[in-house]
Amino acid sequence: MSAAGKFWLDEVNFNNEGLIPVIAQDADSGKILMLAWMNRESLALTTKTGEAVYWSRSRGKLWHKGEDSGHTQQVIEMRFDCDEDVILLKVKQKGGIACHTGRESCFYRQLKDERWIEVEAVIKDPKQIYG
Amino acid sequence: MSAAGKFWLDEVNFNNEGLIPVIAQDADSGKILMLAWMNRESLALTTKTGEAVYWSRSRGKLWHKGEDSGHTQQVIEMRFDCDEDVILLKVKQKGGIACHTGRESCFYRQLKDERWIEVEAVIKDPKQIYG
Repeated sequence: MSAAGKFWLDEVNFNNEGLIPVIAQDADSGKILMLAWMNRESLALTTKTGEAVYWSRSRGKLWHKGEDSGHTQQVIEMRFDCDEDVILLKVKQKGGIACHTGRESCFYRQLKDERWIEVEAVIKDPKQIYG
Repeated sequence: MSAAGKFWLDEVNFNNEGLIPVIAQDADSGKILMLAWMNRESLALTTKTGEAVYWSRSRGKLWHKGEDSGHTQQVIEMRFDCDEDVILLKVKQKGGIACHTGRESCFYRQLKDERWIEVEAVIKDPKQIYG
């Protein structure tokens, strides 16, 4: 339960690296697009700008999703789970592509007969996206 | 990309605690129910039993979801992301309740005017669920 008057960012349980997992879901179709991570600063920037700003663990810096590809995510709604350690963003995905492989969703492989099988098509060649 | 013939479990990138985040999504409605964690053993058990078996970080043991509440999750489909470090389960949620608070989804709070507001009703009193 929320303590009355507590600042919303102070209720967020970041892990021991200062991060929280964030699920991005297409606000219209309900399709799950990706999971990435935010720190306190990127979470604050996300609400301030209205666009998803993650923390890139591989690059060790703020990552305004779409800064290179143009595939930004407009935040429609932000949800919080019972344990206060996961965020759900309902977004409008610009370009209809969330994945760096040029697919709509990062979850394009499905387990079939003990194999991961690609079940979703590439919409746009990454070479065209990233130049 | 999958290396041909590589065992599916060997492609999974567990974190330094041996865990991977798993999103559970209602297979029919597309609603996101919860996010929990699995280790290699629980992931193998999930595919073997056809029901979600997580790793409880708080209790430090395998957690067959619904073992106390009866609210098991039948796995309809399993997806894998591009970085091979997140799993998506599409499930049939028994009882229509995934959250220990008695709600359908754990993501029952929404950010409004810088406050987390409860926007989803309790379906069943947790006292009745857990006895």
